[in-house]
Amino acid sequence: MEAFAVPGLPEFETGDDIATAIEAACDLRGDDVLCVASTIVSKVEGRTATLADYPAGPRAREIAARFEEQTGEERDPRFAQAVLEESTDLVMDEPFLLTETRFGHVGVNAGIDRSNTGGAELLLLPKRPSESARRIRERLSVDASVVVTDTSGRPFRHGQTGVAIGWAGMPASRDWRGETDRDGHELEVTVESVVDELAATANLVSGEGDDGTPAVVVRDWTFGDHEGSENLYRSVEGDFVRQALREWHYEQ
Amino acid sequence: MEAFAVPGLPEFETGDDIATAIEAACDLRGDDVLCVASTIVSKVEGRTATLADYPAGPRAREIAARFEEQTGEERDPRFAQAVLEESTDLVMDEPFLLTETRFGHVGVNAGIDRSNTGGAELLLLPKRPSESARRIRERLSVDASVVVTDTSGRPFRHGQTGVAIGWAGMPASRDWRGETDRDGHELEVTVESVVDELAATANLVSGEGDDGTPAVVVRDWTFGDHEGSENLYRSVEGDFVRQALREWHYEQ
Ligand SMILES: Nc1nc2c(ncn2[C@@H]2O[C@H](COP(=O)(O)OP(=O)(O)O)[C@@H](O)[C@H]2O)c(=O)[nH]1
Ligand SMILES: Nc1nc2c(ncn2[C@@H]2O[C@H](COP(=O)(O)OP(=O)(O)O)[C@@H](O)[C@H]2O)c(=O)[nH]1
Ligand SMILES: [Mn+2]
Ligand SMILES: [Mn+2]
Ligand SMILES: [Mn+2]
Ligand SMILES: [Mn+2]
Repeated sequence: MEAFAVPGLPEFETGDDIATAIEAACDLRGDDVLCVASTIVSKVEGRTATLADYPAGPRAREIAARFEEQTGEERDPRFAQAVLEESTDLVMDEPFLLTETRFGHVGVNAGIDRSNTGGAELLLLPKRPSESARRIRERLSVDASVVVTDTSGRPFRHGQTGVAIGWAGMPASRDWRGETDRDGHELEVTVESVVDELAATANLVSGEGDDGTPAVVVRDWTFGDHEGSENLYRSVEGDFVRQALREWHYEQ
Repeated sequence: MEAFAVPGLPEFETGDDIATAIEAACDLRGDDVLCVASTIVSKVEGRTATLADYPAGPRAREIAARFEEQTGEERDPRFAQAVLEESTDLVMDEPFLLTETRFGHVGVNAGIDRSNTGGAELLLLPKRPSESARRIRERLSVDASVVVTDTSGRPFRHGQTGVAIGWAGMPASRDWRGETDRDGHELEVTVESVVDELAATANLVSGEGDDGTPAVVVRDWTFGDHEGSENLYRSVEGDFVRQALREWHYEQ
């Protein structure tokens, strides 16, 4: 397996065609997985915004005031408003905002970025990243798969990693159920989230800074002869951590 | 960047020398990252066990009884006993066991495997995987880094992915603090857990089944000119999810 950054990509702007730009810059093949950072998907989809777009309502003002109380840091209530408007569930409201975005991803501040925004104050996540992935894939001249990535934190472990927020042309996961181990026993590990592992691989190459490498081609990797699963985001019902966080209250 | 499975490795047994077996099977280089599945590290360190080694105490019997009540499935209390003995903190005790292992990793059943165990009933995680990584690294003839991996689930997202549980020869994370984005602004994303991203990459190649590929070489990847951080496991104090889970009780 090989992973390389697509070289020489420009700064992307609303309406730009990511697929064409990438195929002009590298020799994409039909069995490649093309990993695209959500930041450029958001840019071409016009998902930039300013704080002035989000006059703060009572809930956002409450959140910002509590945050200032707790940390002593100033917080613009319009930013909390933007996060609330981008979210369909508030998983934690203090000491930071952890929410569910409209497509099911759980992340801090609804994944709104304030860096690599192309000069905008805010860069929102794509509205439906799997649809974005499908649109990019449809414009490719080859039959590659597409994964839209973001960088995200997680419980239990420090730091952030690349994760998939949208995908097209392949299942989200390899389903190993029914397969056997080296001793002939049925496997315990059931579902391997390969889109997240591909996004992590891409992130090793892309980085988080000013490298200008928002697209990574993964070559000579195959999904293999496994069942596929499309499920990536847990339902609340099956997610005990989300249930626990609902009942929990932050105390300083 | 390239990632390939080390070919033709044997079934590993207690006392085997992983470093020598790998260098005999491939041409390892000084700037490679060698990712090794914990399953073979456990095997060579003799971390196999049987249920008979774990006569169940009161707490394990209580856990197994509650589990049977809730699911109707039989559960051997000796398995719960093994998990408790491998753990330093019980994060969730129902409907499944989520615990902290002695080296800080939070995982289901303390990471005890019942597949790819080489015939043993149970395969425990290495006691101190970063020390295992150091020992493997010391026996290499080249200056490669070593990452010990496992497959682990996570909140919010279905499925499992490769994660690092031990590492040597490189920091756990790239610390991007103080660096700037494409627009010259200081970055928000602070710490990128590259050892987890490397483990995810390795897992794409290794798989979970009977492929017999427990070692993956990542070549032509560089950590780059960044600060490093050794922190991978969150302290309880800074982990709100763990705090919330402590207070939470499962209700059917
Ligand atoms: N060429 C190019 N690179 C970009 C652009 N926007 C971001 N990048 C690069 O894309 C990579 C990922 O950026 P990041 O801000 O971490 O994106 P995110 O993880 O999707 O939020 C970094 O190498 C950035 O320098 C762009 O418009 N053009
Ligand atoms: N050659 C060889 N492969 C093994 C051995 N044990 C496990 N594997 C392979 O290592 C890979 C990872 O196995 P897995 O059970 O998922 O390990 P874990 O993720 O560390 O718990 C799979 O390709 C297995 O077939 C062994 O002793 N020898
Ligand atoms: Mn982002
Ligand atoms: Mn990023
Ligand atoms: Mn394991
Ligand atoms: Mn595994």
